[in-house]
Amino acid sequence: MSSDIILNATIMGVGMHLGAWRHRSENPSDYLNIDYYRQVAQLAEYGKIHALFLADTLAVSEENFERPNLGAMDPTAVLGALAAVTSRIGLVATASTSFNEPFNLARRIASLDHLSRGRAAWNIVTTFIPDVAANFGKGPLPSHAERYAKAAEFVDVVNALWGSWDESALIGNKDSGLFADRNRVHALNHVGRFFSVRGPSTLPRSPQGRPVLYQAGSSDEGRALGARVADVVFAVQNTLPDAIAFRKDLRQRAALLGRDPNGIKILPGLVAIIGGTEREAQQRKRELDELAGDAELRKLASRVGLPVSELELDKPLPVERIKANDKFNASRGFQTAAIQLGASENLTVRDILYRNGGGHPQVVGTPEQVADFIENWHLVGAADGFNLMIDELPSGLCAFVDEVVPLLQRRGVFQLDYRGDTLRSNLGLGNYHDTLSDSERRRSNYA
Amino acid sequence: MSSDIILNATIMGVGMHLGAWRHRSENPSDYLNIDYYRQVAQLAEYGKIHALFLADTLAVSEENFERPNLGAMDPTAVLGALAAVTSRIGLVATASTSFNEPFNLARRIASLDHLSRGRAAWNIVTTFIPDVAANFGKGPLPSHAERYAKAAEFVDVVNALWGSWDESALIGNKDSGLFADRNRVHALNHVGRFFSVRGPSTLPRSPQGRPVLYQAGSSDEGRALGARVADVVFAVQNTLPDAIAFRKDLRQRAALLGRDPNGIKILPGLVAIIGGTEREAQQRKRELDELAGDAELRKLASRVGLPVSELELDKPLPVERIKANDKFNASRGFQTAAIQLGASENLTVRDILYRNGGGHPQVVGTPEQVADFIENWHLVGAADGFNLMIDELPSGLCAFVDEVVPLLQRRGVFQLDYRGDTLRSNLGLGNYHDTLSDSERRRSNYA
Repeated sequence: MSSDIILNATIMGVGMHLGAWRHRSENPSDYLNIDYYRQVAQLAEYGKIHALFLADTLAVSEENFERPNLGAMDPTAVLGALAAVTSRIGLVATASTSFNEPFNLARRIASLDHLSRGRAAWNIVTTFIPDVAANFGKGPLPSHAERYAKAAEFVDVVNALWGSWDESALIGNKDSGLFADRNRVHALNHVGRFFSVRGPSTLPRSPQGRPVLYQAGSSDEGRALGARVADVVFAVQNTLPDAIAFRKDLRQRAALLGRDPNGIKILPGLVAIIGGTEREAQQRKRELDELAGDAELRKLASRVGLPVSELELDKPLPVERIKANDKFNASRGFQTAAIQLGASENLTVRDILYRNGGGHPQVVGTPEQVADFIENWHLVGAADGFNLMIDELPSGLCAFVDEVVPLLQRRGVFQLDYRGDTLRSNLGLGNYHDTLSDSERRRSNYA
Repeated sequence: MSSDIILNATIMGVGMHLGAWRHRSENPSDYLNIDYYRQVAQLAEYGKIHALFLADTLAVSEENFERPNLGAMDPTAVLGALAAVTSRIGLVATASTSFNEPFNLARRIASLDHLSRGRAAWNIVTTFIPDVAANFGKGPLPSHAERYAKAAEFVDVVNALWGSWDESALIGNKDSGLFADRNRVHALNHVGRFFSVRGPSTLPRSPQGRPVLYQAGSSDEGRALGARVADVVFAVQNTLPDAIAFRKDLRQRAALLGRDPNGIKILPGLVAIIGGTEREAQQRKRELDELAGDAELRKLASRVGLPVSELELDKPLPVERIKANDKFNASRGFQTAAIQLGASENLTVRDILYRNGGGHPQVVGTPEQVADFIENWHLVGAADGFNLMIDELPSGLCAFVDEVVPLLQRRGVFQLDYRGDTLRSNLGLGNYHDTLSDSERRRSNYA
């Protein structure tokens, strides 16, 4: 059934919760360790999770002295390693369109698609952390609009490179000596505002036809890009009505561009803090929170773009002051989601921190409660599935795989095994030809 | 013994010889296949080869329609996969200083060093293929001098990033909540002619202290860079006297910069075409050559910078015309090596093609003859070891591991097992602190 729930597991440091590294019994440097990644990946594959999702953080921030950087390692190096020790699970690498060259990135993801036999995806981000810009030149972080204009061109170039070898271009005829047919390998000759790339790719068409495109970014520009190019949208939605509206909007935008709306999957982030009983789950959360100190509060402050001193735990978010900040240049998705959550039930900052884990909806409860949340959001059209932001690794993923996955499977809404040979087919996406927008089909000679 | 011979195995496509893909019985698309890379890597590790070496080709050239691109796949993605399925062998990724960002490259190689527990190396190249420049902007390939000026700054930034976390900076004290000591993590604040990089790295100090630096480039600028920064120089030397002079020159240059000359290892490329008897080896070469057609002749023409029509098989190289080409912007090492080889014994073009495999010295013979060549060049100070440019994979490597390695081991000049825990120690290099030049020590706050 293509309506099955899609579940991805994120590997961020040693867990999404800011207290995770202190709470877990294992080594704090595990986020550098291949055995740690292997264990988590094989556990997720055992649980039939569709894909592993790696973040990408291109700078050290103040908080990295308090806990592991959640995207310290190069995602393609880690996922290259995991390609060798897994066989079915998808491998999603986040990479920035602001601080890479499209030729290099296209080649790296296509290499991963070949090595994994069709399990690679690129999560398109534009990067909203000012510290990152300082590692790539003298200029400041480009404006939101500029970043998205560059991202749009970047993605078009990458898609064209991925399509630059026709599927039949590699001949490999040892008798005649014809290795590849030059008439089926196409230069791009792309000359745009940001990039000039002649092409073609060094690599033949990869197993998925083209690697899967994830996209994260919920602003108007982000939605426009996602609707045009994304196979999967990694969303930040904290309330059910907002999530339904967001998914409907993305599907409508995609349909208006001539795409099948079922060809774009909307996956909100979700933090599940799981206990055998509700009390045990709350206990786990309390322990994690205590070890994180005020880090979650500071993270919320940076998400909404205010100094931490302007947030009071027992009062609502100061929405007027948040909206008055016209210098805000970070993620609008995270900012909007926090405001919407607060407004939905007139929540205090303390309530928001309980309901929201690092920006994403958070369920603190039993496996049944977590499964109910997932099933309900899926049922009412708020989500095609979730990006599971695991609180602490590997224990949080163990609990999810051991307790929640069997419940969802028994309810008939989650796969008992991988259904296809590629990530694209496992996600219920059609052949990649069907995922192109009308304008993309018109523009591209490569599809 | 630090004077043991060092051997690296290059994985270029499905073999260095241009006829390899037609000669071998396996699939022509193996260069995209993880099982192929796994097989070759595990075979090399079984043979106690010090490191695997991957080339990096950032463009499609005409010849790629006749045979696999020798560096089509992203080397770090492939070596990430190999890090997971090997445990002792070094992993050397070629990457260009002209078409990468130093922050991204430093992070990628450091990630590989963490994942492999200290087996990563970066082979520094400046890229001499004009087709590549067209994939990275509107400008032409920068001049030789410009490329090397950029490379020098690039390497300094990468080294500074690798050193930006003191070895003791990661604290990981769960009780106190101190993850890393900010006083032991240093910004670079680098502002140079080509790059501005604030730093620090997202990653703690990697297992080797710093990953091993290979460098390829034999021009005067290339030698100056290698003498200053390289742990290993990948040389192109076709005659024994030239190789001796080259190694002596590099060691002297290193000593003049305050480095221990034994801390810089010179590895010429070597193509071995191995047969049970000399006749069998010649037969293998003849078969490979026939399948390659005139491709080796065309490669030689491009190496020396002349149209193929100006080379006649039974005449010497037209050295005057080669030297008169003041527009030459490709590898000076390959060009010089070919001229020197021809002049050394007044060889015809046909002779050069027999003695020289894709630019490197070539031995066509029995395992004993190959071992003799290797041992002799090592004994007289022409080489610390070799980069084995395997003619055809995996069969050429099989022959080398099964037949040549045991001979060298019996003669006491090649390791019976890996000696250390990291590539750096296996290569007989000291602690990375000892490999810094005086000027580097003075300049750097990070060492």
